[in-house]
Amino acid sequence: MTFEKYLEYLKYIMDRFHPIGSNEEGGVTRLGYSKEEDLMHWEFMRIAKEEGFQVETDQVGNSYASLGKYDEYHLVGSHLDSVINGGRYDGVIGVAVGLLLLKIVKEKALDIPLKVVAFRCEESSNFMKSTIGSGLIVGENYEKEFDTLVSRSGETLREIFDKRGYSERPKKIRGVKSFLELHIEQGRILEEEGLTLGIVNVIAGNIRLKVNIEGLAEHSGATPMDLRKDALCCAAEIILGLESLAKSDKESSAVITVGSIYNLPNSVNVIPGKVEFSVDIRDKSNENMQELKRKVKKLVKSISTFRGLDFSIETISNAEAVVLDSDLNKELVKIAENLNIKNKVMPSGAGHDAMKMAKITRTGLIFIPCKEGISHNPRESARLEDAVYGGMVILDYLRSS
Amino acid sequence: MTFEKYLEYLKYIMDRFHPIGSNEEGGVTRLGYSKEEDLMHWEFMRIAKEEGFQVETDQVGNSYASLGKYDEYHLVGSHLDSVINGGRYDGVIGVAVGLLLLKIVKEKALDIPLKVVAFRCEESSNFMKSTIGSGLIVGENYEKEFDTLVSRSGETLREIFDKRGYSERPKKIRGVKSFLELHIEQGRILEEEGLTLGIVNVIAGNIRLKVNIEGLAEHSGATPMDLRKDALCCAAEIILGLESLAKSDKESSAVITVGSIYNLPNSVNVIPGKVEFSVDIRDKSNENMQELKRKVKKLVKSISTFRGLDFSIETISNAEAVVLDSDLNKELVKIAENLNIKNKVMPSGAGHDAMKMAKITRTGLIFIPCKEGISHNPRESARLEDAVYGGMVILDYLRSS
Repeated sequence: MTFEKYLEYLKYIMDRFHPIGSNEEGGVTRLGYSKEEDLMHWEFMRIAKEEGFQVETDQVGNSYASLGKYDEYHLVGSHLDSVINGGRYDGVIGVAVGLLLLKIVKEKALDIPLKVVAFRCEESSNFMKSTIGSGLIVGENYEKEFDTLVSRSGETLREIFDKRGYSERPKKIRGVKSFLELHIEQGRILEEEGLTLGIVNVIAGNIRLKVNIEGLAEHSGATPMDLRKDALCCAAEIILGLESLAKSDKESSAVITVGSIYNLPNSVNVIPGKVEFSVDIRDKSNENMQELKRKVKKLVKSISTFRGLDFSIETISNAEAVVLDSDLNKELVKIAENLNIKNKVMPSGAGHDAMKMAKITRTGLIFIPCKEGISHNPRESARLEDAVYGGMVILDYLRSS
Repeated sequence: MTFEKYLEYLKYIMDRFHPIGSNEEGGVTRLGYSKEEDLMHWEFMRIAKEEGFQVETDQVGNSYASLGKYDEYHLVGSHLDSVINGGRYDGVIGVAVGLLLLKIVKEKALDIPLKVVAFRCEESSNFMKSTIGSGLIVGENYEKEFDTLVSRSGETLREIFDKRGYSERPKKIRGVKSFLELHIEQGRILEEEGLTLGIVNVIAGNIRLKVNIEGLAEHSGATPMDLRKDALCCAAEIILGLESLAKSDKESSAVITVGSIYNLPNSVNVIPGKVEFSVDIRDKSNENMQELKRKVKKLVKSISTFRGLDFSIETISNAEAVVLDSDLNKELVKIAENLNIKNKVMPSGAGHDAMKMAKITRTGLIFIPCKEGISHNPRESARLEDAVYGGMVILDYLRSS
């Protein structure tokens, strides 16, 4: 196979996945542990079988393809779920590159023990919790949360796992010599600097909170402004305060996002009585994240109290920043240089399955540029050429190790 | 019948209606032109038939009960729909008092040509448009809006009317000598002043806008604060600005409410890309409302523009303040004084079917206190004794005219 053939095959795989959960706008919705995510995994299985690969599924629904059974092996891949109306490259491109590499290993009869993995539920869009598939198989214990993690369609994670026969405490994955993930950057640094690859050295952590504001739902026409306990006005003041808090932190790369909000009763002529919203805090520094968490809590408390409204704050998740293997990083940079691929070592603002796998094995994460930095959006776009270059770096690493 | 019997009968009627669309909390959901509102009208018909009243339905689904056919008649009633998780008195108490009066007219064989009316879709919770049932029969023309008024379950008003065989341009109601409506105050003035009835002289108008903010949905981890186009942060700044605007207008009784908000994609890890929210402006003065509308538009424009986001503003409805018949008002006050009922002449902040009926006939609106002024809420509560007193005032008016 030549570079052109690699590109063609990668495009073929991406096109096979694209129609699943897609809409007219070009966006895709494949929530973790939903029917659409199942369809993605079935398609992964079909593609793998058509190439003559062996396939398997673990106790939490992650899918694997390989050329045989190995005591020790390298793992390459990413996830197949998406956010609501997201883009077609996020996660999928990393799985597709894995399948391409396995095809090359097979056709060139290379002596590389390689498995391709497609993880489940990396995005937090369905359960407000991310990297569930990879987290479970590296031994994280979510048992206490299984009844409180509720999908958008109202099922608990326990109900879903019970129905599917999955295990809440699966066997820990074994024999993994290294994990390599290729992913779109989801930012605009590589594009702006005209680079082909980013070699990630640290993945930012994130803290997620759920904030509830309780005011009083009253008639919008008959309640004077001074007597109101408007939960949405209170939430609005907090949202603006959080934006200022993150912006004022000039020193750091911290970001704070209120991504989801539920307003009740959400009626034109009723003063909002209850508002629930999420707060997503991210940074490379764990200390700074904890400091921001304290400030967020203080802000919620002071604004709610001043307005005379009740509030509650719940910590949904608390993922520390993860420093990736520096030796592996150096090797990847060296290989990219040898191949004349323009690259830079950089942090990742977003979380990835790599941060879970790093707990149990040497882990590398390679970024390719995405157009205008837009991701989690139907307009998400990336060049498959860059993905092939990334694949070549991973292949050379696997060959040499 | 005695006062005690009146009270007993009124309680009986209220209890018949209560279970429909109600939840454990005690709240009721009977959206206009929904199945639950239908059930309310069927119950109205059943109660009326059990008393031997004649019943009829007009071309838009409003229900009537009477003792016979009249060329000219007095109309007494209100509406049977509710907001989402609203209270059991709003509207229903006015219909129940109508049924009580008709029973008294029958049992005492009074020579009063009386019809009781139960209007459809008075609340704006389903279509973001209020008083549809009463508006249509007084000759208002909504034909242009029938395709754009969409229910919460996604049907247009035209589809609903077509399915039910209703008419978009019904015959104008004829022969109405006067319309009397009893309603809970939905504010706390009567309670605080220890009064039994409010005689309404003016109903505040309202202007409703739909505001759309369009930003850019991007990954919450990978997009620095300075590069964001966060539609929810923009909306939050506008919501706070509107609150200040209404509060700063100390001279007037104007109120501004953002009651409903839709955030897209509403995902924890995606920066909000699109936000739509309602703006409800109410005041007794039409000039002041128009002035506030201009200020609201200016505010939306300046905040969105400063943040570099796109926006659009649509006027959903524009109801002028309505001054009720002053002669009728004086008569009602005189009757209340004669009956030794503590009362005051007062404005209504909320809109009511009375403001539509006032276009075609002499119209009176009587308020009874509601506990702590709470309405559009499961905690809504009122004393049936006050409703019987209100009914007595209406009865004496009907006798004398």
